[in-house]
Amino acid sequence: MTATNLIDGRQIAAQILDELRPRIAALKSRGVQPGLAFVRVGEDPASKVYVGRKEKTCAALGIASTTQVLPEQTSEADLLALLARLNADAHLHGILVQAPLPRQIRAEVVYAAVAPAKDVDGFHPVNVGKLMLGDPTGFQPCTPAGIRELLARSAVKTEGAEVVILGRGNIVGKPMAAMLCQKGRQANATVTICHSATREIRAHCRRADIIVAAMGVPEFLKADMVKPGVVVMDVGVNRVPDPASNTGTKLVGDVAFAEVQPLAARITPNPGGVGPMTIAMLMQNTVRAAEAVMR
Amino acid sequence: MTATNLIDGRQIAAQILDELRPRIAALKSRGVQPGLAFVRVGEDPASKVYVGRKEKTCAALGIASTTQVLPEQTSEADLLALLARLNADAHLHGILVQAPLPRQIRAEVVYAAVAPAKDVDGFHPVNVGKLMLGDPTGFQPCTPAGIRELLARSAVKTEGAEVVILGRGNIVGKPMAAMLCQKGRQANATVTICHSATREIRAHCRRADIIVAAMGVPEFLKADMVKPGVVVMDVGVNRVPDPASNTGTKLVGDVAFAEVQPLAARITPNPGGVGPMTIAMLMQNTVRAAEAVMR
Repeated sequence: MTATNLIDGRQIAAQILDELRPRIAALKSRGVQPGLAFVRVGEDPASKVYVGRKEKTCAALGIASTTQVLPEQTSEADLLALLARLNADAHLHGILVQAPLPRQIRAEVVYAAVAPAKDVDGFHPVNVGKLMLGDPTGFQPCTPAGIRELLARSAVKTEGAEVVILGRGNIVGKPMAAMLCQKGRQANATVTICHSATREIRAHCRRADIIVAAMGVPEFLKADMVKPGVVVMDVGVNRVPDPASNTGTKLVGDVAFAEVQPLAARITPNPGGVGPMTIAMLMQNTVRAAEAVMR
Repeated sequence: MTATNLIDGRQIAAQILDELRPRIAALKSRGVQPGLAFVRVGEDPASKVYVGRKEKTCAALGIASTTQVLPEQTSEADLLALLARLNADAHLHGILVQAPLPRQIRAEVVYAAVAPAKDVDGFHPVNVGKLMLGDPTGFQPCTPAGIRELLARSAVKTEGAEVVILGRGNIVGKPMAAMLCQKGRQANATVTICHSATREIRAHCRRADIIVAAMGVPEFLKADMVKPGVVVMDVGVNRVPDPASNTGTKLVGDVAFAEVQPLAARITPNPGGVGPMTIAMLMQNTVRAAEAVMR
């Protein structure tokens, strides 16, 4: 197969953002500008890049954004106090605490302190619970929601499909499984979650119609681990040494793209696949949060 | 294999209840009697039996129980008002709303109205979310928690095991998957959730080390669907016609027990397997809820 089997995440994300424009205009015509707060703790370079991209997308769409930067040594109590203020701010419809957080701060305490109605990252336990229960009133985590959109807009049928998810993290693996196993459209798949303790990961991958690779292992998924015609979604963002690069490193996904791509029916490039969708779904969640306030 | 491959749920449940006795005594010595409220709406005969059994177990253990019965026509608002009163009652540490609820009442609204700290059934979205996130501070649903105990106390290793769950309900299938796929002890399994849309359910079952049957289809799992040495947990409670019985019906599980049992390494009888564990785990959750108040 050729490059036409690529799922263009940038293009699909742009389409989703375009669909948000009239909704944002409608909100503004009623006097509401959607507002999103970013909270960043410390100076992790990747976090700066991620928040920067999200800020830029907000600006392009006309979503008001504010970024609160706390020092690396910030106490959990101080971060919680900031979240309480942001929760109470009626101009803010969404709040995103950028991972990773420094050691002295418990991530689960922080995520549970964001008001569920402003939890556009979908990490609050009540939103996680609603996702698992099949209750559509909660916010769903952006990366797996983006993958579901990529599948839907690439006409990949999930109903009855054998889906293998590599990785059981709280941000991608587990919520992706919860989404795709539900009864209903764009779901209804037979889902297997594989992880570090899985004995026969190759056998699982080889029987899969759809593989979501979210383990964080560079180029883990090789050509001899997939069946021809597989659909592959690569979530991995792994920095590996690269003597040929100016920086001495490069980013690779969890998929050995060059060898898997020729076998795949559809595959996400990386970058340019799943990544842009995460931001698009964050914007969609924020617009939805603002619309909910109007009701 | 012989009858020695049976997992005796009654005996293991009795052992768990015995382990609760000193904890209840310790609470009482500090002036706290654990209290559990049952709420039943309408006169469903099975619900009466289930609540009756739970009341009896409370009495045997020295847990105070109260049962509120509302008429079949009760409005959702009236049920929510009752739950608000029970949430506020400091003598009650647990609240259980017995399913099924009549049509005019939305189950998800009701479960979300029980205070999470009293949600000993583990159905509130925040507790479901905590289960999925691997956060041990929530309450876990009693039936899957009971199955995990049966496996642990029968020395069935789940780590690295291939687990196939038949059924994706919110009460058993989905929370069971969330429990067993977590990193950590008595978990760490490779979990596949099968359901009505699964294409090759037989192939999945035949490769499984452990099968949890919770579809609600009488005697669905047949001998030719399992591999020798499988461990089988039968959650099904299905009433089927039986001309030989006085009532004209009998209860059967989701497993064709007579033909599967000879192949299994371990198997739950039904009744006498999973059922008693559900009640034992409810009591355990209630004691834990009372202990949490003391802290």
